[in-house]
Amino acid sequence: MDKPEILPRLDQIDPAFTGDMDKAEAQDCLTDFRSRLLHLHELLYADRRYAVLVILQGMDTSGKDGTLRHVLSGLNPVGTRVFSFKTPNDEERAHDYLWRVHRNVPPRGSIGVFNRSHYEDVVITYVHGQIDEAERNQRLEQIRNFESYLVQNRIVLLKFFLHISREEQGERLAARIRNPEKMWKLSASDLSERPHWDKYQLAYNEALQATHTADAPWIIVPADRKWYRNCVIARQLALALESLDLRWPDAPVP
Amino acid sequence: MDKPEILPRLDQIDPAFTGDMDKAEAQDCLTDFRSRLLHLHELLYADRRYAVLVILQGMDTSGKDGTLRHVLSGLNPVGTRVFSFKTPNDEERAHDYLWRVHRNVPPRGSIGVFNRSHYEDVVITYVHGQIDEAERNQRLEQIRNFESYLVQNRIVLLKFFLHISREEQGERLAARIRNPEKMWKLSASDLSERPHWDKYQLAYNEALQATHTADAPWIIVPADRKWYRNCVIARQLALALESLDLRWPDAPVP
Repeated sequence: MDKPEILPRLDQIDPAFTGDMDKAEAQDCLTDFRSRLLHLHELLYADRRYAVLVILQGMDTSGKDGTLRHVLSGLNPVGTRVFSFKTPNDEERAHDYLWRVHRNVPPRGSIGVFNRSHYEDVVITYVHGQIDEAERNQRLEQIRNFESYLVQNRIVLLKFFLHISREEQGERLAARIRNPEKMWKLSASDLSERPHWDKYQLAYNEALQATHTADAPWIIVPADRKWYRNCVIARQLALALESLDLRWPDAPVP
Repeated sequence: MDKPEILPRLDQIDPAFTGDMDKAEAQDCLTDFRSRLLHLHELLYADRRYAVLVILQGMDTSGKDGTLRHVLSGLNPVGTRVFSFKTPNDEERAHDYLWRVHRNVPPRGSIGVFNRSHYEDVVITYVHGQIDEAERNQRLEQIRNFESYLVQNRIVLLKFFLHISREEQGERLAARIRNPEKMWKLSASDLSERPHWDKYQLAYNEALQATHTADAPWIIVPADRKWYRNCVIARQLALALESLDLRWPDAPVP
């Protein structure tokens, strides 16, 4: 396997980074790449050789739902599947932890989006001491093998880590508390997890480094500015699809 | 990973082997181990820490259905799941080949039986030239990783290869043709695949050798004598369960 480009540590990336882009430019970027995406999605569906699996991972309030709404909600629901990973239920807990993940891997011809993913099983569990370091490391290796298997089977992985600052999270949580239209998004765990911020950053950084492979590299998205985040994700997704040499299949009847 | 014991080549094992056992002894063996199995299955179900996955693989007429009927049909259906792998349907074909396999991996506390399995995806496909040697070898590696992951997640694998001779297959096919009560079992592929016997033996031997690991070793069962086959499988299954240190859990309410 090729070595991927080196992934910076999380603390080396400014969550408020926007390059030299301003908000208006970012909105043009989103509009542009979203329309390319609509076309590419149709082509992916017709071609049927590849599936695309988008993984959205990040701290609470980092913008996973917002990304879905702004970047992906324009896609044709035929050929699009979103799966949100919650705390495992009884049936899921009786199975190996990748069971529910593999079940929801999209079929070829479609785009699947994981809102949270198997990375919760190596980060949350580890931060809370439900698994020790040896088991965490074993899981990281299992995940590398699993993802490599998927890519070898023509499931293209796009793993986005939405990187926000602790301050930005504070403001977003405060907005949820203040604003009646956002209050429903607030969960008890948003507040109880916040004191573990540093442990989460460390555990995420280790998980990202260990699973950043040539086949399935991580893309760390500075996400304090939602407009910049949306532009980056729409662009990466469109470019990944463009790189697939998708083509309209021949007519089924000659 | 420990090295497993060396697996003999298929052509080194006599399919009619029965050791020094006669039919009456084999039936006692089956009765004995089946009753131990009933008890162990209940314990497995109560304990909930392990799942057992039995894989039955072999040439057509090698006795997969007969094994299910004679060895496993006494088990409590609660906590037992049989999955028979057929030619993949449209939905399954749109997914990676282990998708339908992983979906059907049993939850902890239960015994799952695969009548055929992912080994069809490295044997049939290879014999018929649908995948080349490079892809076959890549799949064998993927299967090793997948099985190793399952075992690490407390899913005990018991992989049985039911080994019959070409002559015995000929007789069993003839019986299906002659006997109105067996005719329904005959499929067109039973006859069209028979000329490929040698290619299948070779492809099976390579697949078995490549996936015989310490975690998930193969058990080659001489299967020309059904009574011997049943005794071996019942015994291996009971011994595997006995080695698991299963225990009755504490009362949920103190």
